[in-house]
Amino acid sequence: MDFEEKVTGHQPVFSGHLIDVEVQDVLTPAGNHATREVVHHAPAVAILALTDDDQMILEQQWRAPVKQVTLEIPAGKVDDRDQGDLRACAVRELNEETGLAAEHLDQVNATASSVGFSDEVITLFVARGLRPVDHALPKDQDEELSLLKVSLKEALEMVATGQIIDMKTVMAIYYWASQRVN
Amino acid sequence: MDFEEKVTGHQPVFSGHLIDVEVQDVLTPAGNHATREVVHHAPAVAILALTDDDQMILEQQWRAPVKQVTLEIPAGKVDDRDQGDLRACAVRELNEETGLAAEHLDQVNATASSVGFSDEVITLFVARGLRPVDHALPKDQDEELSLLKVSLKEALEMVATGQIIDMKTVMAIYYWASQRVN
Repeated sequence: MDFEEKVTGHQPVFSGHLIDVEVQDVLTPAGNHATREVVHHAPAVAILALTDDDQMILEQQWRAPVKQVTLEIPAGKVDDRDQGDLRACAVRELNEETGLAAEHLDQVNATASSVGFSDEVITLFVARGLRPVDHALPKDQDEELSLLKVSLKEALEMVATGQIIDMKTVMAIYYWASQRVN
Repeated sequence: MDFEEKVTGHQPVFSGHLIDVEVQDVLTPAGNHATREVVHHAPAVAILALTDDDQMILEQQWRAPVKQVTLEIPAGKVDDRDQGDLRACAVRELNEETGLAAEHLDQVNATASSVGFSDEVITLFVARGLRPVDHALPKDQDEELSLLKVSLKEALEMVATGQIIDMKTVMAIYYWASQRVN
């Protein structure tokens, strides 16, 4: 069965600092014309950072789209300093946001966060053997966050009660839980 | 520590069928002015549908934003027929996309897929006791998909090899794995 749609035209409708938006005209395999709305976003990384006493690091920050303070694992977009290297980006973000470096940094997966309307792909790493960095990088401007540490049991409860709603963070917590027992 | 930003203005920049986009002017707690780009998207549901022989149902479909065929759990947006009821939406989507009804349908969590730029929240259900529906609903127009079933072991391998990249689906697979062993 052929699924591929052919893009027959596209109109940029918004160009921002964080996202670009375009409308695509497509031809479906069945020969129908349709439009697709696509939000372009830079590739990103997220880090399940686990301390020696088996706690995960969470960041508390305001998120305008959901109008609330969220609890999230350290994360950020790939930028010029990373030269397209996802691992370098993870090292940098962990430094900037937590002041830590990891002895072990392993890639877990790469997932598309909102496959219906966006091309954002977040690559998840797990970091262990955390130590204070020698040279701390400055935080991003206009990024205000504070850190906390929670156990797996606490994290699972915070998902169940809706205190943690960020999908990449929930994915990472379930991953951690699945690893614990296999 | 106060994190809340005050929205001091907003400009709609795109209004589509699937998404609306606006730029917000905000005042941070530290008193700085900044802008936030926000993609509005309807609430949605996703369903980890588990068969009596312990396999999950996956859908194969073309996704324009990531330019590839994806493997995803059944999912869809809340619409007028659901009257704002997420469970009713899950029942409808499972019917439309798989032709199945569930004896047991339990809410697992509700997560924001792209908290940095979108307000999309996806509520995850797990469905068990699957039976063919008495009255099948028609599929959405311009939605072409085919179904397959895989075991937990197969699903985890498909995540590890990058055959499954959809974040809500990966989250559901890790959830399934975490439940299996606790």
